[in-house]
Amino acid sequence: MTLPIALIGAGRIGRLHAANIHADARAALRYVVDPAPEAAAEVAAATGARVASLDEALADRDVAGVVIASATDAHADLIERIAPLGLPIFCEKPLDLSVARATACAEAAIRREIPFVTGFNRRYDPDFARLHALIREGTLGNVESVHIVSRDPFPPPLDYVRTSGGLFRDMAIHDLDMARWLLGEDPDEIAASASSVAFPEIGAAGDVDTALILLRTPAGRLCSVSNSRHASYGYDQRIEVHGSLRTARVGNLPQTQLLVAGAEGRVRSGAKQFFRERYPEAYRLEMRHFVSVVLGEETPRTTVRDGLRALELADAAEQAFREKRTISVRYADL
Amino acid sequence: MTLPIALIGAGRIGRLHAANIHADARAALRYVVDPAPEAAAEVAAATGARVASLDEALADRDVAGVVIASATDAHADLIERIAPLGLPIFCEKPLDLSVARATACAEAAIRREIPFVTGFNRRYDPDFARLHALIREGTLGNVESVHIVSRDPFPPPLDYVRTSGGLFRDMAIHDLDMARWLLGEDPDEIAASASSVAFPEIGAAGDVDTALILLRTPAGRLCSVSNSRHASYGYDQRIEVHGSLRTARVGNLPQTQLLVAGAEGRVRSGAKQFFRERYPEAYRLEMRHFVSVVLGEETPRTTVRDGLRALELADAAEQAFREKRTISVRYADL
Amino acid sequence: MTLPIALIGAGRIGRLHAANIHADARAALRYVVDPAPEAAAEVAAATGARVASLDEALADRDVAGVVIASATDAHADLIERIAPLGLPIFCEKPLDLSVARATACAEAAIRREIPFVTGFNRRYDPDFARLHALIREGTLGNVESVHIVSRDPFPPPLDYVRTSGGLFRDMAIHDLDMARWLLGEDPDEIAASASSVAFPEIGAAGDVDTALILLRTPAGRLCSVSNSRHASYGYDQRIEVHGSLRTARVGNLPQTQLLVAGAEGRVRSGAKQFFRERYPEAYRLEMRHFVSVVLGEETPRTTVRDGLRALELADAAEQAFREKRTISVRYADL
Amino acid sequence: MTLPIALIGAGRIGRLHAANIHADARAALRYVVDPAPEAAAEVAAATGARVASLDEALADRDVAGVVIASATDAHADLIERIAPLGLPIFCEKPLDLSVARATACAEAAIRREIPFVTGFNRRYDPDFARLHALIREGTLGNVESVHIVSRDPFPPPLDYVRTSGGLFRDMAIHDLDMARWLLGEDPDEIAASASSVAFPEIGAAGDVDTALILLRTPAGRLCSVSNSRHASYGYDQRIEVHGSLRTARVGNLPQTQLLVAGAEGRVRSGAKQFFRERYPEAYRLEMRHFVSVVLGEETPRTTVRDGLRALELADAAEQAFREKRTISVRYADL
Repeated sequence: MTLPIALIGAGRIGRLHAANIHADARAALRYVVDPAPEAAAEVAAATGARVASLDEALADRDVAGVVIASATDAHADLIERIAPLGLPIFCEKPLDLSVARATACAEAAIRREIPFVTGFNRRYDPDFARLHALIREGTLGNVESVHIVSRDPFPPPLDYVRTSGGLFRDMAIHDLDMARWLLGEDPDEIAASASSVAFPEIGAAGDVDTALILLRTPAGRLCSVSNSRHASYGYDQRIEVHGSLRTARVGNLPQTQLLVAGAEGRVRSGAKQFFRERYPEAYRLEMRHFVSVVLGEETPRTTVRDGLRALELADAAEQAFREKRTISVRYADL
Repeated sequence: MTLPIALIGAGRIGRLHAANIHADARAALRYVVDPAPEAAAEVAAATGARVASLDEALADRDVAGVVIASATDAHADLIERIAPLGLPIFCEKPLDLSVARATACAEAAIRREIPFVTGFNRRYDPDFARLHALIREGTLGNVESVHIVSRDPFPPPLDYVRTSGGLFRDMAIHDLDMARWLLGEDPDEIAASASSVAFPEIGAAGDVDTALILLRTPAGRLCSVSNSRHASYGYDQRIEVHGSLRTARVGNLPQTQLLVAGAEGRVRSGAKQFFRERYPEAYRLEMRHFVSVVLGEETPRTTVRDGLRALELADAAEQAFREKRTISVRYADL
Repeated sequence: MTLPIALIGAGRIGRLHAANIHADARAALRYVVDPAPEAAAEVAAATGARVASLDEALADRDVAGVVIASATDAHADLIERIAPLGLPIFCEKPLDLSVARATACAEAAIRREIPFVTGFNRRYDPDFARLHALIREGTLGNVESVHIVSRDPFPPPLDYVRTSGGLFRDMAIHDLDMARWLLGEDPDEIAASASSVAFPEIGAAGDVDTALILLRTPAGRLCSVSNSRHASYGYDQRIEVHGSLRTARVGNLPQTQLLVAGAEGRVRSGAKQFFRERYPEAYRLEMRHFVSVVLGEETPRTTVRDGLRALELADAAEQAFREKRTISVRYADL
Repeated sequence: MTLPIALIGAGRIGRLHAANIHADARAALRYVVDPAPEAAAEVAAATGARVASLDEALADRDVAGVVIASATDAHADLIERIAPLGLPIFCEKPLDLSVARATACAEAAIRREIPFVTGFNRRYDPDFARLHALIREGTLGNVESVHIVSRDPFPPPLDYVRTSGGLFRDMAIHDLDMARWLLGEDPDEIAASASSVAFPEIGAAGDVDTALILLRTPAGRLCSVSNSRHASYGYDQRIEVHGSLRTARVGNLPQTQLLVAGAEGRVRSGAKQFFRERYPEAYRLEMRHFVSVVLGEETPRTTVRDGLRALELADAAEQAFREKRTISVRYADL
């Protein structure tokens, strides 16, 4: 029998998860929960699921797992509501914009030993997974430094900027998770600089659009994260790991393999446009992983603790930037 | 309502078409016909289709189109059986190994105005389609020469070699179709050379493993095709078009975007392994096109005439090689 | 008549300058001064120059310019000795390891209006010069961030490490100069992290082998510098400028254009091995520029002030690292 | 003492050889012979040589070697005049446009055991030399096919076209030499096609501007040569060797390492513009080799026989094109 899954949130990312659950022969989407009835109905129609209220969905004892893809400010409430039911949870990052609240959520999930997968999709990307495997297998030798470039193709709407928690929490958080994963240990020092050099209106809204973050681990490994809210050539997602034996890089995925050579030089396409074009395989594998976790066949690869750690680092990065000093990172003890 | 489609042939390529029909919301696979009951049953189970005999499948008046993915030597009989029914046909290349027989099939289909799509999957590849668009839009100027490299990763079994019609008909035929498409006119002269320098056992079986074909069109455009039965770095599928204004190339799709740099140099992955890894999107778009043809929304992009022309060129190429002279190509008048 | 030039220092870099002066039809090397008579004699033999003491060389009223390529700790004394003579000076970086002493030298040269070229060879590299031109011409739009990777192929001897002034002053100084040049304004904030993760013996000698520096300018532009004392694939010298309209990168120069594809993937050569292989053209153009400056045809492109500024930034970077805080950079007022 | 060399021909290629002889500490240019006194004087001034008549230059018993860089139609007379003197000869390709005349020259040089270097500069290019070494060392396994692309950036003047012997003799000859070298044996079959699709005025002058040549060796190795009189992106000089174990390619040398990414995609520079920009190192090493041959330290790497063989192949290629058949190549027996 296929596993019945409930989806909370039928927005852009919710629809993506819905399609991937539907395509996984082991699972079926049973409920779609969303305050916007049309969005929910559309997802339901495409996947054979039913539109339901949260109460209805959670009342069904057959539901085997819940995917939380709602607005960020609902995450914590949902986790605290669902965790006591013992249901496996997939939750988009961030857990919450408040470290205190996120810590409480994580504690709740950990105390109850809920199988919990945090939506750090990039770890499931085949190229980044190979990069991680190269480290683990010793091909690169000792990791000495990691360099992450992460630039969105264009800035989000100002409304989003005002409520997202800012660049460090809504954008760099992905990179900080990759940094932890590739460094192989938790950074204990962080410095940062940032500005709104690209979009003054983002500065006026209280956020930054360009940032550099600098991490250091107890073993002396260093990491740089370069963020920008725009990139004229597409979604820029590159990582380089400098090791004692070798240095490895994952470059951008080009839109095409075409090269046009003329008097203007050799022209190739830009990078895949944004996360849905760049990471379809990562999202697919991420949701397959969650289904495997629900089935008890795998343990979470991106845990609720990972979700919390990245948020703690994002907070520390912003503090370092605001206070103009290197911050010694304190992690919650759980 | 979804279009009911019948599939004849549940082998490697048949399974691929079955999955793509299944994924197309506009169509449904209704019948799978194959002399091997297990293969048919497997495809049927994965797609909700029924296993049937050819007679049963064709007796169903609801069937809206037929996909022929059987062994090559059954193609012609099937076309002659199905064409009189007026059903739209998708047929894998080659139509037949005999130009005479293929001509008769093509005539039958054309006379009855059957919507007929020949399975030249490469024309549906997004990169090659963009290359063709660059020509059509004038970006490259006048096409002066086309250069096609097409190498399989490893040789087929000797049993296949003995019955396939030989490298010119089973392998180069794809490239000869691409040549016609990109040159924009039918070549009227062809020269060729070939040998079994790589695999003497292929030579002993009467075939060649390495070939070069040289085409010339009435307008003086030239084309080279380079074939090999092996390539240690994967499936090598490159095309270059040299135009009066610009030169464009489609390179291989790498397996990964990873670069590992060390004392041994900078190492990247090889090319995608073979046609299913290299052309999944092309196969998907090809079958979507066939469904659109069945729906009457599109006219065939790769016609039965295209299927015949490529075979006529393959015959002429082999003749040029055997007779050591430039052949003036004669095409059937239809 | 050709310009007579005196060279002080016949070591590795001195020999390079000697060959470039010799190849410039407008100039001739007249004197070579070096405490090691054999080194001086070798350079003299290859260029038709005479071995001389400093006094002898400076006593010749025909000498039109002096190239200082001695050990770093002699730079300041030499500048203070030569500046009063009014002779044009080319001096390798750094001016001195002490900012105070370097400031005094710079003041001496500026007060006397000595034509003074500091040896920041990278600014003369044709690719970096084109990158700078792209900025100047507006092709990139507003510069938002600059990213510099600079890694030596292998670490220097420990003896050098102990006296070089450390990674920030002997290595990052080049990158800090490039940063100023490409950012188009002087950074006013600097943060840094570093460690001896690669070579514990370098840590034991009081230096670091891996560093990250983070700069911010008054306009909010950001810059990262990534340094390492080793790179298994050659001398790694890359720069990326992220602009509002476009992003430009200068990559490494490969040793060869050869690609070898096999079961192990696609293998290309590593980067040019070290500065003499990577920057021969830059050194040639740098010395041609100095000759043009001596001739009065050009004004210095890399001034004594540039030499001082880069040193001040190197000092501030080390301070930021040691004190774990963002430093507001103070520049000498000259 | 430095070797005195005489240069015949002070045109474009003569000046290049003059500069390389001058830069070689082992040799000195003593005489420049050219019917145009100004051209000769210019070369003489730059190198310290004397302008002389051919008689004067050859009357000097100290002259140790002669470089022939005159117009092609003077080559044979010069060789026949100089060979009896026993002097080492460097001669630009082709020996002569007539195979009969070239054979006579080659016989004269071989009979007298003259150290004779033919100016096939590409064999001295470091990248192509490494490619050849990979074959020799077995890295590629057995060579199965060779693919040469050779396109000039722009067509020559029509006056040149009318007297050059045509594309096969003035352009393809270089590629045919590379083919022989990389195939490791002399082709015994050749086919070709050509047209004046790019420049009708070249067709009107009796020549072609686009050609494809197809070679086959006794061992069954194949080779394609693709020529064009123009390439909008620079001088296109690529070679690929497909071996049983690996496939190796030498790509074009880009003008810069700069990448500019924007909405228009990722733009890199085109290829080096023409032979002087692409092959300076090859020309330098070629002339160093000739000096080593004169010194008796090396034996010619590109012999007079090589010069003749390439011409015989060029003749056969044109014949194959004109007669529309595969030609069995006959080589002179020497």
